[in-house]
Parts: sequence; structure tokens; C-alpha cells
Amino acid sequence: MSDYQPRDPGFAARVRASFARQHLMHTLGAQLTRVAPGECEIEMPFSLDFAQQHGFLHAGTLTAVVDSACGYAALSLMAPGAAVMSVEFKVNLLAPAAGERLVARARVVRSGRTLTIVAGDGFMRDGADERHIFTMLATMMAVAGRAGIAD
Amino acid sequence: MSDYQPRDPGFAARVRASFARQHLMHTLGAQLTRVAPGECEIEMPFSLDFAQQHGFLHAGTLTAVVDSACGYAALSLMAPGAAVMSVEFKVNLLAPAAGERLVARARVVRSGRTLTIVAGDGFMRDGADERHIFTMLATMMAVAGRAGIAD
Amino acid sequence: MSDYQPRDPGFAARVRASFARQHLMHTLGAQLTRVAPGECEIEMPFSLDFAQQHGFLHAGTLTAVVDSACGYAALSLMAPGAAVMSVEFKVNLLAPAAGERLVARARVVRSGRTLTIVAGDGFMRDGADERHIFTMLATMMAVAGRAGIAD
Amino acid sequence: MSDYQPRDPGFAARVRASFARQHLMHTLGAQLTRVAPGECEIEMPFSLDFAQQHGFLHAGTLTAVVDSACGYAALSLMAPGAAVMSVEFKVNLLAPAAGERLVARARVVRSGRTLTIVAGDGFMRDGADERHIFTMLATMMAVAGRAGIAD
Repeated sequence: MSDYQPRDPGFAARVRASFARQHLMHTLGAQLTRVAPGECEIEMPFSLDFAQQHGFLHAGTLTAVVDSACGYAALSLMAPGAAVMSVEFKVNLLAPAAGERLVARARVVRSGRTLTIVAGDGFMRDGADERHIFTMLATMMAVAGRAGIAD
Repeated sequence: MSDYQPRDPGFAARVRASFARQHLMHTLGAQLTRVAPGECEIEMPFSLDFAQQHGFLHAGTLTAVVDSACGYAALSLMAPGAAVMSVEFKVNLLAPAAGERLVARARVVRSGRTLTIVAGDGFMRDGADERHIFTMLATMMAVAGRAGIAD
Repeated sequence: MSDYQPRDPGFAARVRASFARQHLMHTLGAQLTRVAPGECEIEMPFSLDFAQQHGFLHAGTLTAVVDSACGYAALSLMAPGAAVMSVEFKVNLLAPAAGERLVARARVVRSGRTLTIVAGDGFMRDGADERHIFTMLATMMAVAGRAGIAD
Repeated sequence: MSDYQPRDPGFAARVRASFARQHLMHTLGAQLTRVAPGECEIEMPFSLDFAQQHGFLHAGTLTAVVDSACGYAALSLMAPGAAVMSVEFKVNLLAPAAGERLVARARVVRSGRTLTIVAGDGFMRDGADERHIFTMLATMMAVAGRAGIAD
């Protein structure tokens, strides 16, 4: 499915272990539902605790989940030992984030040695219906050799 | 201090009331510490619950607080009855978000009838020291006449 | 091919007429090679006149052509009488822009009454080979009733 | 004036020499009017050749000049031998670019070893009057050791 070759054959376990250490993902009740070379999917149930003043999921909540998916799509292609950090991203909010479940999907656009460009999207799912509500274009960086920082 | 004239003399109370209805700001323990025409400041204590895998505040957490500050800086200049919604934003992460307290400051760059451009920044405060860790450039929209959507 | 229904049945002629009035596109030697509902393609031959200091096409040149493609993809869906203006865009440069020809392709992500979100990409073509070198995420606005501003 | 210490004492001559090799800046009739550690200013006279269909300077023209200013603000702080390349940028168009002269000003927000974050702005000048029409937030990269690529 994916066009990318992982530099680390253990990429999937590494992404899952890093996700498990993400405090915010735990707080949000988010789950890593798929990882492939250069791709990642995360889901989160709707909760009013993470909504804005009109009752829709807050742009910051959407950003947190899609940014994490983008970061792990990037990490899946990084060499062993590198940590992933977000350099920057841009977001467009396409429609109010109402629905049962947020689904975030990210795929690498370009994988470089230092920088990885990733496109991410957010969808609200209601039963079998999915609505595209969010899109992100992000730059991720591979950071190596910083004490205490890995994956 | 500010160059802008509010269209709504009750802008400050309106911003405070809307902030009080922001579920996510309550969840994060964030407080609105300042509002002026075209300007807004929000603070949040560091909490590991909202951190990423390396123990720094997650980019989504920073985005949530700075985006809210940008939205309220925009709302402070909007006509009575309009609701504010984020159209899009771009973020650069300047340094790891470690410290006691996140301080988000936003100021309107250009106030239009429909669209407002806002610059926001995030700082980590430790005692008297503040470090610039995050910068955002955002577009906010005034939405009028949508049932159930105000401020 | 396209999922969108144009609001203006004469959208293609209207886009072509507006493109013909774009001074910069003429200066760059760019040509409108395709227009469909919500989609647009523009090509430009490489020229050192529009290069940066290392001999690659300048980021501003790439932006000009891809932004125009994004604007016309948006205009193709706008109601008669509306003019299109760029509100904002974000760009990632993926690889140096060397090659015979720049090909810019844009497609609408979301079409609203006032705002249209468009994704655009730039490719350098050498013979039959195409290389992805540029990606843009843009917001376009429909402006109506401004004297002297149309399409 | 500037808070930054240049790593290269010959930074100003180096920026001026690189600017002189920018084909597009020459084509646009742009001039480098100021360089300081972490800062750069470029001016360009209005010309219809670089306008869009409504007679205002094209977003791509504005981007070209402000991106160049951002790149040289970054280069002014880079170590000798490094070349500067744009990684990504985000732009907001604040008002139509009508007037006698475009003035672009850039200043570094954060200077890192590999990445430099720069804020740039565009103004249209008419006589003594300046109008803020454009704002950019950009990431620049220091590239070393690539054959044929310097400054």
C-alpha cells in the first residue's frame, strides 16, 4: 500500500511504544489504530471535555490528534535512535467537529534525512459516515543524540 | 495600549463569558488573564497530563491555548452577535515547552469585517524568566446568524 | 472526474478570460493547460530569469504559478460576478526546482460560500519524468460587489 | 539594533553578493536596502508586469520579495560556507498591493544550527505613507557541503 521502505524494521513496535508514552493521547482517550511505513491512523471518541464554547471539538484537540498521527507517520520512516519533533504545521478547519469519533490519518509526502513533510487529515465519524473536517500540512524533524529524547 | 476601537463596548465581558464556556480551557486549567481591544492573554499551569512522549507540553496543547487567545483577540473587535471561528492557522515550535507555566499572548494584525488576522505567541515562564517557545499566525472568521452559535 | 458542480455554467471561459488578464502569468510565459470544476493546471517553461541564486526556480515563482492554479480552481466553483482573492497559503518546498518545465495542479478541498480551501502541487517535468517539488494549502475568498474587481 | 551576533563577520558582504546572483530579484528590479544581523530589507518598484488580473502585485511577487528578505535575514546569522534554502512559509494577504513601491522587512525569530525561523512583512509605500499588506512566517535551513550550492 505504502511506497516507503522503513529504515528501521522494528518501526511499528517503536511507534506503538512511543504512542503509549504520550501523556496527552492517554488523557484524550485516543488509540493508535494503524501504522504502516509512512502512514499512521489515530482515533479518539468525542468528549465535551475537549470541546470549545460551541460544543464542537476544539481546534487544539484536533491539532493534537492529527499532529500526533503526522509525527508517527514520520517516525515510522526514521532511522533507529532518532526522535521525532514537530517543527511547524499549518491547519485548515473545514467544518465543525461534531460527531461520535475523530479519525486522524497521516501520510508522508516527502521523507528526508533531517526533515519529513507530512499531510494529515481529520474526519468525524458517525456510524458508517465520515466527514472531512480538518487538514494539516506539517514538517517533522529527526533529532538524534539529545540526552533523554528518543522516538 | 491598543490601536483598535472595539465595535462592541461590552467586549471584555463578552470575551470572559465565552471563555467560561470553553470546555477545553476548563479541562486544561487555563485562565484568561487579560483582554483589551484586539489583544488577549491566557495562562495555563504545566501539567504532565497534557504532555507528549518526552515530557514537554504537546504541540496540540500549546495550539489549543494560543488559538484560544487568538480567537478572543479577534472576538474583542467583532460586532455584537457575531461568533468567532478559527479558519486556519500556522504554527512554529521554537523550543521544547518545559517550565512552570504557559503564557499565550495574541494581538490582532488586521481586523476586517469577515476575516481577522491574528499573531499569537507562547512563552514558558519559570519564576521571573520567560522563554519564547511557540508562534502562531491565524485567520479568524466572524460568523453571524447561525442558530446556537454565538461569541 | 471532479466531484463538484459549478455554480456558473460558463466557468471555463471565465477562468480562461481571467487568466489572460494576469500580467504576471504572461510575464512568466505560463499557460493554462486544464480547467475543470474545482480543478486547474498551469504550466511554465523553466527560465533563469525567474531563478534564485543557485539556479533553481525561486520559491516566489513556484508560489506565483501554484497560487494562480489554486485561485482558478476556486474561481471555477464560484457564483457569477464573484472575484477570487487569495486570503492566505502555506507552502512546503520538497526539492530543488530544476528541470524543463513547471507543472502546477490544484484541486478544491472544500468549497464554501465565502471561503474555498484548495490544495496545490508543483512538479518539475523533464521529458516523461515528473518530480514533486512543491506543495501548497491555500484559502481563497469570493469577493462580490467591489468596483472594478471581477473574476 | 539587533540582538543577534553573526557567526560570520563578513555577513553583510556575503548577503549582498548572494543577492546580486538572484536572477529573479534582478528581473523584478528589486534592491537590497538594508542588512543587519538577523534582519534584511528589500525594496521593489511597482510594475504591472508582476501584477495579477486586478492590477495589484501578484501574491507570488510579494512572496518572492518577502521570502528573499527572510532568507537573507537567516543567512546573515549562518556560519561561513552554509547555503540558505527555504523549507516552508505561510503567508497572509492583508490588503491589495497597490502603491508605488513594495518594501519587505524580515527579522529572525529564532536562530538554530540547522533551522532558522523568520518573520517577514510587506508594505506598499506611497510617498511618505506605508501600508501593511502582507505577512509571512518562514522556516529557513542551513545547507552545508552540497556541491555548487553556497550562500
